[in-house]
Amino acid sequence: MSAPLRLGIAGLGTVGIGVVRIIRQQAALLRQRTGRDIVITAVSARDRAKDRGLSLTGYDWEDDAVALATRSDVDVFVELVGGHEGTAKDAVEAAITAGKQVVTANKALLAMHGHVLAEAAEAAGSTLRYEAAVAGGIPVIKTLSEGLAANEVTRVMGVMNGSCNYILTRMESAGLTYEEVFAEADGLGYLEADPQLDVGGIDAAHKLAILSSLAFGTVVDFDGITLEGIERVSIEDIRAAADMGYKIKLLGVAQKTGRGLEQRMQPCLVPDTSPLGQLDGGTNMVVLDGDAVGQIVLRGPGAGEGPTASAVMADVCDIARGVTGPVFGMPVNALTRMPAAHAELPAPYYLRMSLEDKPGALAKIATVLGEAGVSIDRMRQYGHEDTAAPVLIVTHKTTPDALSTAMDAMAGTGVLSADPVALRIEAV
Amino acid sequence: MSAPLRLGIAGLGTVGIGVVRIIRQQAALLRQRTGRDIVITAVSARDRAKDRGLSLTGYDWEDDAVALATRSDVDVFVELVGGHEGTAKDAVEAAITAGKQVVTANKALLAMHGHVLAEAAEAAGSTLRYEAAVAGGIPVIKTLSEGLAANEVTRVMGVMNGSCNYILTRMESAGLTYEEVFAEADGLGYLEADPQLDVGGIDAAHKLAILSSLAFGTVVDFDGITLEGIERVSIEDIRAAADMGYKIKLLGVAQKTGRGLEQRMQPCLVPDTSPLGQLDGGTNMVVLDGDAVGQIVLRGPGAGEGPTASAVMADVCDIARGVTGPVFGMPVNALTRMPAAHAELPAPYYLRMSLEDKPGALAKIATVLGEAGVSIDRMRQYGHEDTAAPVLIVTHKTTPDALSTAMDAMAGTGVLSADPVALRIEAV
Repeated sequence: MSAPLRLGIAGLGTVGIGVVRIIRQQAALLRQRTGRDIVITAVSARDRAKDRGLSLTGYDWEDDAVALATRSDVDVFVELVGGHEGTAKDAVEAAITAGKQVVTANKALLAMHGHVLAEAAEAAGSTLRYEAAVAGGIPVIKTLSEGLAANEVTRVMGVMNGSCNYILTRMESAGLTYEEVFAEADGLGYLEADPQLDVGGIDAAHKLAILSSLAFGTVVDFDGITLEGIERVSIEDIRAAADMGYKIKLLGVAQKTGRGLEQRMQPCLVPDTSPLGQLDGGTNMVVLDGDAVGQIVLRGPGAGEGPTASAVMADVCDIARGVTGPVFGMPVNALTRMPAAHAELPAPYYLRMSLEDKPGALAKIATVLGEAGVSIDRMRQYGHEDTAAPVLIVTHKTTPDALSTAMDAMAGTGVLSADPVALRIEAV
Repeated sequence: MSAPLRLGIAGLGTVGIGVVRIIRQQAALLRQRTGRDIVITAVSARDRAKDRGLSLTGYDWEDDAVALATRSDVDVFVELVGGHEGTAKDAVEAAITAGKQVVTANKALLAMHGHVLAEAAEAAGSTLRYEAAVAGGIPVIKTLSEGLAANEVTRVMGVMNGSCNYILTRMESAGLTYEEVFAEADGLGYLEADPQLDVGGIDAAHKLAILSSLAFGTVVDFDGITLEGIERVSIEDIRAAADMGYKIKLLGVAQKTGRGLEQRMQPCLVPDTSPLGQLDGGTNMVVLDGDAVGQIVLRGPGAGEGPTASAVMADVCDIARGVTGPVFGMPVNALTRMPAAHAELPAPYYLRMSLEDKPGALAKIATVLGEAGVSIDRMRQYGHEDTAAPVLIVTHKTTPDALSTAMDAMAGTGVLSADPVALRIEAV
């Protein structure tokens, strides 16, 4: 039996306490599965006096996470502080420099500084593992970097922010506006301290940047992501999409195209009968396409004490078994830099508009769409009592350029009574 | 850079050739991801002259798989012969004794002899990995043994035989009988040489036995599985289940109960809107419940050249990176033997019967159900032109004992015009 693996845990919020609980409650199981004891040497958090629902007696306390990270009696530094600057970054850097193994749930840190940290870890002979950073309890990092190691990954797609998915599904089920559900979710504590991280799609984009790097062997490139949050998704669009057989999801997609690496996080329509379409509430789903394996779909809880702690502990168990390895699946000097391909591949689009109720209005719209090379797959005009006629169009596959041209031309027809909405429809 | 990892591959069917293809086509990627070259030293199969669609020049040929398994220039023996006795078993044993690492896709071998092989591997300081043995390209072995390593797994459930799922979904979509679709699938080469392995549920039960061992830390116990194939699933039941909102699936379930380890593989009804209910064709799905993580659902191709070879190569890549570890997730002496709990936990049941068209028939059935303690949730009697009235019942949760009593009592009423059908309904 090897010597115990000694952890220093910084950050004692929901996830940190979840990790402490697992280490206490599953000590025997962890010993059997890893061949050694996993123990906590010391912990650190902002407020020592706070009641966390369990006693921390038996663990040394450090006010300073950097001091914790570099203690000689700590083998693995577990960073659960969060944020891509400040304490989290300082302590992870210090731990790596001190040759510690590092486990983190910090997607922002990985997305913003992952490459530099990976270089430092490689130089120090250390490792940095982050299963909990993406899609909570779903072992997607392990699946990509190990389970599909012999695959050339062709696409990564997923719903990776449970709060956004909660808001969108709740809007539909309760018939509430975005603003109403946002207030409700915020009151329930479902949103980050800075809600823009959730609803602006930033948190989900952090995760996508990490998965892209692992999938395509590229330097993590958060800035290369085309990013749009869910703030502008209206209950009208959710209802209209449902009427055409779709759900609206904040969907991340990453794939190599002829022009470079396409990474986008934006509200899209997906078929309501598809696995992504049926994803309700805070659940996450990641869809991975590989040249050998075909398509793998992983689904599970995207956040919460148990799921996230489970993922943190998977990394700890791997380290206990001696499994380390390159941070992004291959040595940093093998990672390539690909230009960001902001122009998307052709796709069908959903268009919603209100037309002035006068003769020839719909004909004008159909004409400018046709002139822009955008062909109509399905169209519905609804009965109405006021002066504007609601119209929905699902186009055949079209390029974003052609769509953009068509949208401009539509604005010039003078028959629109409000700005039209266009959303991409993603095949699953 | 470490020395090349040298493979000896026995069995050059679909999967073996898929492995050869990946090693050739992805040599650079594999080197980047594992830090070393992965090469094939020698191969073995029954028929050297057979055209396999690619040249095997450059690999030594061995007529005898045992000789291949023990070559001094082979580090990893890859067993893709199949079958739980004969060549596969002899060669795997020889490889382990010779201290080789072994990778296999052989679910039958693991299910029947896994424990003895694990003991031998542990004694020899060798390893035996088998990601491809369960659910094809889905990395479920890795997810259970590593991704959920810190969880006490509470249930394993899944559809793990693509051929059966193909037959059942094809019966429904084409309105064909079991016999018609069986003949069709057999003609298309979708079934094992011994089709009973597929339709009798044996292949799926092998997989369930392996997952149970990993999930619950128990000695693999194929004989403890309650097993029923799909041969008796009729198109009438598929239609009637659909009418009540269900699909019929060959479903494996393993969980600890108060009486021991319950493992069963049998046709069950699942809600048609559930992830399992929507699983069409040859796709597999595994649902894992863990105390910390909650529920994880994995879905992907359950068979075929690419997916299975992808899983074989995941094991090879792990070995190349130095990742080995106990065969069933913990040392063999830590694995426990649990009694088989054949009596199932209570569940709702689906009952289909034909009643003689005479007054009071339905009342008699309702009475004996009530007397046996089986209460009715939903009931439908259909219009009919002949003398027998089709009746469907969905019960509330009931014990298998109570159901059995009720079925016996129903037979004694004299109002049934044919043997009734009872199928368990599984909550997902």
